[in-house]
Amino acid sequence: MSQIKKLTAPVAPGGTIGILGGGQLGRMLALAAARLGLKTHVYCHDPKAPAFQVCDHHTVGEFDDLAAVARFAGTCDVVTFEFENVPAATVEHVARSTPISPNAAALRITQDRFEEKGFVDSLGLRTAIFAEVNTEVGARAAVKLVGGSGVMKTRRMGYDGKGQTRVTSADEAASTIKSFNYAPSILEAFVDFSYEASVVAARGTDGSFAAYDPPENIHENHILRRSLVPGRLTEAQATEAKSIARTISQTLDYVGVLAVELFVCRDGTLLVNEIAPRVHNSGHWTLEACAVSQFEQHIRAVAGWPLGDPARHADAVMTNILGEEAADWRVFSKVPGALHLYGKSEMRPGRKMGHFTTLTPLTKARSRQ
Amino acid sequence: MSQIKKLTAPVAPGGTIGILGGGQLGRMLALAAARLGLKTHVYCHDPKAPAFQVCDHHTVGEFDDLAAVARFAGTCDVVTFEFENVPAATVEHVARSTPISPNAAALRITQDRFEEKGFVDSLGLRTAIFAEVNTEVGARAAVKLVGGSGVMKTRRMGYDGKGQTRVTSADEAASTIKSFNYAPSILEAFVDFSYEASVVAARGTDGSFAAYDPPENIHENHILRRSLVPGRLTEAQATEAKSIARTISQTLDYVGVLAVELFVCRDGTLLVNEIAPRVHNSGHWTLEACAVSQFEQHIRAVAGWPLGDPARHADAVMTNILGEEAADWRVFSKVPGALHLYGKSEMRPGRKMGHFTTLTPLTKARSRQ
Repeated sequence: MSQIKKLTAPVAPGGTIGILGGGQLGRMLALAAARLGLKTHVYCHDPKAPAFQVCDHHTVGEFDDLAAVARFAGTCDVVTFEFENVPAATVEHVARSTPISPNAAALRITQDRFEEKGFVDSLGLRTAIFAEVNTEVGARAAVKLVGGSGVMKTRRMGYDGKGQTRVTSADEAASTIKSFNYAPSILEAFVDFSYEASVVAARGTDGSFAAYDPPENIHENHILRRSLVPGRLTEAQATEAKSIARTISQTLDYVGVLAVELFVCRDGTLLVNEIAPRVHNSGHWTLEACAVSQFEQHIRAVAGWPLGDPARHADAVMTNILGEEAADWRVFSKVPGALHLYGKSEMRPGRKMGHFTTLTPLTKARSRQ
Repeated sequence: MSQIKKLTAPVAPGGTIGILGGGQLGRMLALAAARLGLKTHVYCHDPKAPAFQVCDHHTVGEFDDLAAVARFAGTCDVVTFEFENVPAATVEHVARSTPISPNAAALRITQDRFEEKGFVDSLGLRTAIFAEVNTEVGARAAVKLVGGSGVMKTRRMGYDGKGQTRVTSADEAASTIKSFNYAPSILEAFVDFSYEASVVAARGTDGSFAAYDPPENIHENHILRRSLVPGRLTEAQATEAKSIARTISQTLDYVGVLAVELFVCRDGTLLVNEIAPRVHNSGHWTLEACAVSQFEQHIRAVAGWPLGDPARHADAVMTNILGEEAADWRVFSKVPGALHLYGKSEMRPGRKMGHFTTLTPLTKARSRQ
């Protein structure tokens, strides 16, 4: 660990932030860095990466091309990533020569659903009951452990519902792990939650912490459709959500923005569903409703700057524009509020193409349910 | 005029907006275009132009290199400018092959203080009393015409107080026009105004109009230091200011954002000081206090999109960071609110290096003074 290069002073304006990954999150990070007078260098395998359109430098390369990654890192004052499936080995490689945040340990834990749930559990935070699954026999046993039904997920590389199957019997569990080709998996008890929520928060190099108000999130086909802030969370639940994010980020010695996805149960309990070690779709509303957005907050954190004020000055509803819906850009261009399109040329089903946020005057979270 | 190429349909996401000029206004225009999924190609003589850091393509070239300008325009769906001193001939040259907004006629008028004041006067709008000055004899006569004292300004190319001298006698007027090397000039009566204000507004290709709430502006050494919204303007004055901008933009068949600088006299009268055919420093607060900023509004207008809602959802104070002050970026990084630094490497005295905006809950303009 002594090989890890640490940031010794804040990155001055004119300095360069390296971003691994060039999707819409990388694009919005680059735009946020530009506001602060910082340059960006984006590294992505896709020559048409949306972030390439708005950065000072870009490199087309694979994450496992460590020589190319090292050349990229050599041009940067600090490196970060927009994508939790960057190989932890790549992050560790960068860390030897250039400061990189968040750290590789945080990335490793959040890349593996089983490690992640175990970590959350070890902090005394609540999750759905879960069990490891590697074999058909194990799958049958796991169904019993979690109460007869649940959601089987591959431990690694899933997002937006990919690599997830609902199972309601031992037979289904066995056939599912087979269909996963015995990829290491996890079975999570089915949670009869009332709704989903999330908390987006940041931790700075100085250990400071700032959390945005937690939105209520509405999913369709496992893909986020809408975030509402304030949603149905009570003030006490909002405070608890922020406290969860604080505990997680402190324990991980995390630097940057992270998101914690939550299930809000019918009895009001908050369960941790997932940790995303990056800016998050459910925080896009901060672009308009806060003076410092989640994207700027992440740049501030990784650049060693003081965190900005996460206070909201308006209520907000963020709605995603998915797949072919983006063809209706003329309709969206008339929507009152703020429109964001991500510069993606191809409209694939369910692909996040843009979003819009409508603002209304500020109200507080409800003081009770 | 039949040679002018018109926009026949809105520029679709993925299309390219050309921007003549690569300073901070071009930079913020490029960032705003990116939000809408539009690419930008920036043309500027300065290889270190701040806008080059955030655009998809850039060209280093002079405005009078019409061949280079034509090649640039050929890559764009529509062209605009961030700088009112682009030669009108350059704009006319582009207009033959590529739609360009605002139009050359609007640019010509606003490039010449004497033409501009005459134009405003012809609309029945009020200005300070003014007279043309070309000679020492003319200067002496002009002082009498405007009431014994005034401000002499070159008709062309001045900004931030450059090319402006206060004169209080016929002798001073004569020596000033001599010091201007007899550049065509204008003498404007000294206005004992209460404070300065401005209105930033947009007109779309469909003739639609949208004005932001007019800020009160505080200058130091002829350079804008601070814009406050709402400032001291009454609701009636705010309405009048918007109406002035509407009259001007309609008469010019203007497309894009323009700013009208105003003197607010002690009796409440509004005098038009200057028209800027572009986004304006006194509109930077719209980045945070409105869902659609002046920069996005300008892009929407020139791209043939519907104008966005100019409503404010917060009160705002915008403060410029000038010259060497930018060395204190660590201090500014702690200021509550939104910080913008423009990516300029060199800190020259008075140079606009960045700004910050603080937001407070929304209040209305005062209903009376």
